[in-house]
Amino acid sequence: MRAVCSTDVFGKKLALVSRGVSARSTIQLLGGILLEVEDGALKLSATDMEISIQTTSPAEIEGEGRVVIPARIFNDIVRSLPAGNFTLEYDGSEGTVRLAAGENEYTIRAYAADDYPKLPEFDAEGAFRMPGESLVETVEKVSRSYSRDETRPVLTGILISFEDARVRMVTTDSYRLSIKETELATTPFEDSREAIIPARAMTEVSRIFSGSDENDVEVSLSENQALFRIGDVVFGTRLIDGNFPEYRRLLPSGFEREISVSREDLMGTLRRVNLFAQRQTPPVPVSLSFTEGSVEVIVKNGDVGEAHEKLPANSEDDFLISFNPGYLLDGVSAIDTEKVKFKLNEALKPGLIVPGENGEENGDGGEPDFLYLIMPMRDPSRS
Amino acid sequence: MRAVCSTDVFGKKLALVSRGVSARSTIQLLGGILLEVEDGALKLSATDMEISIQTTSPAEIEGEGRVVIPARIFNDIVRSLPAGNFTLEYDGSEGTVRLAAGENEYTIRAYAADDYPKLPEFDAEGAFRMPGESLVETVEKVSRSYSRDETRPVLTGILISFEDARVRMVTTDSYRLSIKETELATTPFEDSREAIIPARAMTEVSRIFSGSDENDVEVSLSENQALFRIGDVVFGTRLIDGNFPEYRRLLPSGFEREISVSREDLMGTLRRVNLFAQRQTPPVPVSLSFTEGSVEVIVKNGDVGEAHEKLPANSEDDFLISFNPGYLLDGVSAIDTEKVKFKLNEALKPGLIVPGENGEENGDGGEPDFLYLIMPMRDPSRS
Repeated sequence: MRAVCSTDVFGKKLALVSRGVSARSTIQLLGGILLEVEDGALKLSATDMEISIQTTSPAEIEGEGRVVIPARIFNDIVRSLPAGNFTLEYDGSEGTVRLAAGENEYTIRAYAADDYPKLPEFDAEGAFRMPGESLVETVEKVSRSYSRDETRPVLTGILISFEDARVRMVTTDSYRLSIKETELATTPFEDSREAIIPARAMTEVSRIFSGSDENDVEVSLSENQALFRIGDVVFGTRLIDGNFPEYRRLLPSGFEREISVSREDLMGTLRRVNLFAQRQTPPVPVSLSFTEGSVEVIVKNGDVGEAHEKLPANSEDDFLISFNPGYLLDGVSAIDTEKVKFKLNEALKPGLIVPGENGEENGDGGEPDFLYLIMPMRDPSRS
Repeated sequence: MRAVCSTDVFGKKLALVSRGVSARSTIQLLGGILLEVEDGALKLSATDMEISIQTTSPAEIEGEGRVVIPARIFNDIVRSLPAGNFTLEYDGSEGTVRLAAGENEYTIRAYAADDYPKLPEFDAEGAFRMPGESLVETVEKVSRSYSRDETRPVLTGILISFEDARVRMVTTDSYRLSIKETELATTPFEDSREAIIPARAMTEVSRIFSGSDENDVEVSLSENQALFRIGDVVFGTRLIDGNFPEYRRLLPSGFEREISVSREDLMGTLRRVNLFAQRQTPPVPVSLSFTEGSVEVIVKNGDVGEAHEKLPANSEDDFLISFNPGYLLDGVSAIDTEKVKFKLNEALKPGLIVPGENGEENGDGGEPDFLYLIMPMRDPSRS
C-alpha cells in the first residue's frame, strides 16, 4: 500500500478519528488507528470498544493494505509536517509504516490489522434523519444533569426518544432532571424508538457535527448500539442496558408559586455568591429568600464568609428555599430566554426551572419545551 | 478603616500581590493579603517567607487599620464585581471584612495583622538601576538551564552579577550551562556585586516588569536578600546561600569545528524528530550526523520508530554527536539570530551553542554575549 495524502486534509481526518482511540487500554491495537484501502480512498477507524469512529480521506493510492498505526505518534508527526503532501507506505512485511515528506523520513512501528475488531456498518434502512443543529442544541440542554457516577450506569446516559416528529432527551443524576423536547419541521418518523445512549458519546456526536459542513445527522438504533452518520463520518456507540427512572412521575402536577427573574442578572449573582460556597463537600447551600417584588440570594459559609445579593422578582409572599449552588447555576444556565421562571411548591419539594414567558413554547398546551427539575436542600438556618 | 476603591484598579493590584501568597503553607496568615493604610493609600502585601510583594492602590480612605484577608476569596469576589467602585470596611472587632457594591454585600472572614511577618523596605542607597527590558531578556535567555532539583539549591538559582556597566546571569543544572551578558548603555555601576537569586523569583520580577508601564528596575542586594523596585511595586526574595559552580573552568578554550545551521529550520526539525524521543527516561538521544555541507538529524527509538531529517550546514567533515533532545532544543530556542552556531570538539566533549555570525557581539574581542554549553550523550549506535 502506498498513498500520497494532503497533510492538511488527512491530518484533520486523523485527528477526528483519534478521539475514538482508547487512551488507557492495555490492548495495544486499541491505541492505534486502523488504516485500510476502501473504494479508492483511505479509510481510518478507531474504537475503544465502547465507541467507534470511521471516516475516509482522499488519497492517490497504489496497492492494497490494512495496518494499525499508534495514534499518538501518527498524529504528532502529521500535525507537525509542513503544508503540502506526504507519502505513506506499508509493505506488510516489516511491521513499520514509512512516512516521507520532502527530504524528511519517518518510520513508525505498526501492528498487523488481523486482530483489529470488526466495526459496525451504517444501515440507512430504518434510520432517523434530523437537523444536526437541533441535535446539538438538545444534547447541550440536557448535558448538565447526567450522572458521572459509574455505579448507576443508566444515569450516565441520555434517554433519547424519537416519536412523531419530535426528539426528546432526558437526563438525571437523581438530584436534578433535564427534559428537552425538540419539534422537528419534518415528516413524522415512521417508527418510534427509545434508547439510553452514553452521554459522553452524544457529546462526541455533537462535536463531530459542529466540526462538519453537514446539515443533517442520521441515526440508526439497533438492539445494543446506536450509529450516527454525519457526512462521511460514522460514529458508533454501545447502548446502556437497563431501565431509565420513571421520570414523568417525578414532575409535580401543580405549583403554588411561579416566579420570574432576569436570567442574566441571576447568572451574575449566582457566579458571585457561589464563590462563598467553594464547592465544599457537603455542599454549602445557596438560599433564595423571596419577598414581595424581590429575591435575596444568600450564601453563608462559616469558614469563608457570607454573600447577600438582591434582585427584582415578581414574587408575592415571603418564601425561603435552598439549593445546591452548582445545580442551581446549571439549571439557570440552561435557560436561554430573558427571564427564568421558578415553579415552586413547599421549601423541601422539588422545583422546576423553565424558560420565561417569552420562551419557546411548543404547540402542546403551553408546556415549555425544556424543563429542569431540582431537589432543594434543607435550609441551613433551620437545621 | 473604610476605603472606597475602583474595582478595576484595586483588582489588578490585588492580583499582582496575590502571586506572593503561599499556596500550600499551613500558616493561615501567609494565605492572606495584608491590607493597611499607609500615606493615604491602601498598601497590599503578601509573602510566602521566600518571596514578598508589596504595592499600593489609590483609595478614598477614612480611618486607620491593618487586616489580613484570605487571598483566594478576596480575589474571586473583586474579580467578579461589576465595573465601578466598591467599599471595603474593617472595624477591627468582628474578625470580618465587609465589601459592598451597590445592593450587594459580602462579608469575608479575616485575620488580625499583629502576627504578620515584617516585610523588608526598599533601600535606594546603593541600589543598581537598569533598563527593565534588558533584565527581562537576560532572565529569559538563561531560564532554560537552571535546575528544578531542590537537592542542590544553588543550581535552582540564577547567578547574577553587576560589574562595570554590565549585567551577567548564569544558570546550570550540571548538564548544560547558559551565560548571558548584557552591556548597559549607562554609567558603570559604582560597586560590583554578585548573588544567587532563586530562578523562580527572577521570573516573577520579569513578569511584574512586563505587566508595568515602567522603564527601569532598581535592584538592591543585601547579605541575604534581593529587593527589586518596579514603579510602586517592591518585590523581595531571599538569596540562595552557597557556592555557584566555577563555570568559567567548564568553557573549552578552543574548538575543532564551528558549524552554522539555519536556526528556524533546525527548530522545526528538532520539534518533529523529538516527537520520536517521547521524553522517555532515560532520554532517547537525538544525533547530529554532519557530512560535508549538510547535517542529518536522527532519532531512533525502538518502541516508536525512527525520524531522519537533513539540513544544509557549513560542515566540512563526517562527525557524529548526540544530545539530550530537550536540552538541544532548549539551547537552539535561546538563540535569536538567523543562524545558530555549534562549536564542537570530540563527540563526548561539551559543545557550545552560540548566536550565528550576524548575532550581537559585544565589544570584547568578538565573544558572543550569550552561550549555551551542553554535554553530549553517548552515541546510541556505538553503545
